[in-house]
Amino acid sequence: MTILKEIERVVGEKGLIIGEDVLNRKAGIWIDEGIYADAIVRPKDTNELSQILSICNKFDQEVIPHGGLTGLAEGAITRKGQIAISSERMTLIEEVDEVGRTISVQAGVPLEKVQEEAEKYNLMLPVDLGARGSCTIGGNISTNAGGNMVIKYGMMRDSVLGLEAVLADGQIVSSMNQMLKNNSGYDLKQLFIGTEGTLGFITRAVLRLREKPSSINTALVGLNSFEHVIKFLKHMDKGLGGNLSAYEVMWKNFYEVVTASKSNHTPPLPLSSSYYVIVETMGADQEKDSVLFEKLLETALESNIIQDAVVPHSESERAKLWSIRDDVEQHYQSGPVKMFDVSMPVSYMERYVEEVNKNFAANWNEYKCVVFGHVGDGNLHIIGGVGSDDKKATKLMETCIYDPLKSIKGAISAEHGIGLEKKDYLEISRSEIEINLMRTLKKALDPNSILNPGKVFD
Amino acid sequence: MTILKEIERVVGEKGLIIGEDVLNRKAGIWIDEGIYADAIVRPKDTNELSQILSICNKFDQEVIPHGGLTGLAEGAITRKGQIAISSERMTLIEEVDEVGRTISVQAGVPLEKVQEEAEKYNLMLPVDLGARGSCTIGGNISTNAGGNMVIKYGMMRDSVLGLEAVLADGQIVSSMNQMLKNNSGYDLKQLFIGTEGTLGFITRAVLRLREKPSSINTALVGLNSFEHVIKFLKHMDKGLGGNLSAYEVMWKNFYEVVTASKSNHTPPLPLSSSYYVIVETMGADQEKDSVLFEKLLETALESNIIQDAVVPHSESERAKLWSIRDDVEQHYQSGPVKMFDVSMPVSYMERYVEEVNKNFAANWNEYKCVVFGHVGDGNLHIIGGVGSDDKKATKLMETCIYDPLKSIKGAISAEHGIGLEKKDYLEISRSEIEINLMRTLKKALDPNSILNPGKVFD
Repeated sequence: MTILKEIERVVGEKGLIIGEDVLNRKAGIWIDEGIYADAIVRPKDTNELSQILSICNKFDQEVIPHGGLTGLAEGAITRKGQIAISSERMTLIEEVDEVGRTISVQAGVPLEKVQEEAEKYNLMLPVDLGARGSCTIGGNISTNAGGNMVIKYGMMRDSVLGLEAVLADGQIVSSMNQMLKNNSGYDLKQLFIGTEGTLGFITRAVLRLREKPSSINTALVGLNSFEHVIKFLKHMDKGLGGNLSAYEVMWKNFYEVVTASKSNHTPPLPLSSSYYVIVETMGADQEKDSVLFEKLLETALESNIIQDAVVPHSESERAKLWSIRDDVEQHYQSGPVKMFDVSMPVSYMERYVEEVNKNFAANWNEYKCVVFGHVGDGNLHIIGGVGSDDKKATKLMETCIYDPLKSIKGAISAEHGIGLEKKDYLEISRSEIEINLMRTLKKALDPNSILNPGKVFD
Repeated sequence: MTILKEIERVVGEKGLIIGEDVLNRKAGIWIDEGIYADAIVRPKDTNELSQILSICNKFDQEVIPHGGLTGLAEGAITRKGQIAISSERMTLIEEVDEVGRTISVQAGVPLEKVQEEAEKYNLMLPVDLGARGSCTIGGNISTNAGGNMVIKYGMMRDSVLGLEAVLADGQIVSSMNQMLKNNSGYDLKQLFIGTEGTLGFITRAVLRLREKPSSINTALVGLNSFEHVIKFLKHMDKGLGGNLSAYEVMWKNFYEVVTASKSNHTPPLPLSSSYYVIVETMGADQEKDSVLFEKLLETALESNIIQDAVVPHSESERAKLWSIRDDVEQHYQSGPVKMFDVSMPVSYMERYVEEVNKNFAANWNEYKCVVFGHVGDGNLHIIGGVGSDDKKATKLMETCIYDPLKSIKGAISAEHGIGLEKKDYLEISRSEIEINLMRTLKKALDPNSILNPGKVFD
């Protein structure tokens, strides 16, 4: 194959994986299948990548960008005839500006490595998610990753100051801005954030670091109505003056399963509440912040906004509380399930969950519909299970969950992206004109449609 | 003229200003000249605007979007043959979602009106700037306005959740998202934020509101080196855990002029320092926040990071401190001056200001080079004066200020934008490939180049 020869001339033997070695690699950390692709190309820097894309563009060769393969929306799935380009050899941490509080990295650096590097300077990258050890900065940016601190620090987009990406034709767009403020022309990096590798291949980034908070306060709280969940959110956010960093809600059926006897968790609060919230703050003065935090919990108790609260008294107790929220796997024990990621204005949430339950009940006598999520950000996760994971059942479940979003202008993806998985439903959240404008951008930047084609939209 | 007849059919007599009435309107609130344009069109809503643009596109008619005309970079300057389209009749506040903490408005609503509306719900739009009474939300978004709270809350971009814009051909792109998190396809609103009306005409927006802080702490501080200015910034930002909301630095020559005897300001601190900083925090507990704030000032004094500090004891005393920073006009008293708006990593600032002074000194025996700015955001303002405001002198002054930015990857515009004023210098901050990519976007979205043509780049 001429094209692979040309590519090998650029990246050398080390940079090219072909044959069985391709299929022997897993298509994703949650996927059992191997990678279907004609080759995996592993450039070591931007220049090599630029040459590769230029060759692929000449040959109309479809390419799929690969980061840590931890995505949840089939955004990096390849098939025969396509070439995967992996950032796995682009793992350089180039610079930390301690004064300007920025870090410049190549796209293949795992999130956790950046977190650790920032830590050395007593700084913090305020983006964190479960796959931190495997996911890459390039992947985090191209999917605009969310996570647990969005309410205080925003999504990945908000931590990107500068970006470098290679266009389909090999042109290097280097916008490695280090400033918080730069209104010198169009903010081109926005083209590559959250567009899932369809408009360019991200090669480097400048990320904003923050001062590391020196105080953390956490509580698990029980509430008896969703109205109180909303009231308590406002009560805490108002009272904390910007320090609220997590507001994670578990519906009763989530809490019940995770704290059941067969799990490893002892329920820190009894099962008498309808909702359970992990609320957490980050600040600068442990003593004063704790006093304020506990005062706010007390007033919430006194005014019956919350029923009960437990405050951990050590880091290990805190970890135990969080492990309840994080132990999503408990819901995977009995039969096949599928996890959903939607968002909507908070005021619609209760009604939405009721409607989803109604839809499930209309289709199945027995079903699982477990709800939890980053309610402070309007983001719900739903674990749906109907006893089968065949295509028909999955499709029907998707309809039950996505359809009610239409009338309330909700989003079929809050933080996971669209990929292949959700593209059939994109029109629930976006108008035809919007999707056409996406196509216009795609056509302008990648006229031969070689970059991750068929992802997000057709 | 056929086109104006067609437009009148859409907007009615009330919606169209022609003849002398056009020139009788001022081209900007800081400009003495009138508006040169064939007409000012005043649609009352998105649908009218859509029809107008569709007509203009058919006729290849250039149109210039007009908001409050408070811009500082000649982004809304019109000339004969062009038509201005003003948002002045699109001033509806459509909805406040108190629970979701969002406000939906038409683009012509003045910033101050949104601030006042938010206030009614004890909420806050965290964007504020001097022209608040005249500038419009549409203008704030299309220039990605900055202001005094960027260090805590980000720029206008960070407060925009949803957006509606009309494309050059009249298509309405409605992305009125109300959620903090939405990864359902490309984030199209980014195309219209900070692109100065060259890619679309913004018609409506959903803005994110925040809980109004209930505590404010302010101090004016004197420091004797720029190294200490940097150290103090870190000291406060670290110590305050995310509550630092302003870090405004005045170089000595700024402070000296503003507090001189002929001004109305008594110097709150003696003239013995080299730099003066207004530092301000916003939090939720006045008593505790004040204790922490004053403790941080004390430790800074003890460790000689700062020389002196004054803390206001009433709102009027606080206003007096700020009035020193805000009284930029004092520098306009003796001869013509020009204000610049640049940004760079903080660690380069001292050297940069030295170099600008050297450049001035090499060209003029006497000159004014007064520096102040939002140092916490990397943003400096420079007031340059060389005794003349003719084109040659202005050009030379621009070169003195912009050229040194090139090697340090600084920005020729931090918050004011490019407009006509700075487009000749855009290549100092952006590469040819970047500017070409801007042109690609322009061509894809506005193939006939009717929307604010010639602004930002040619």
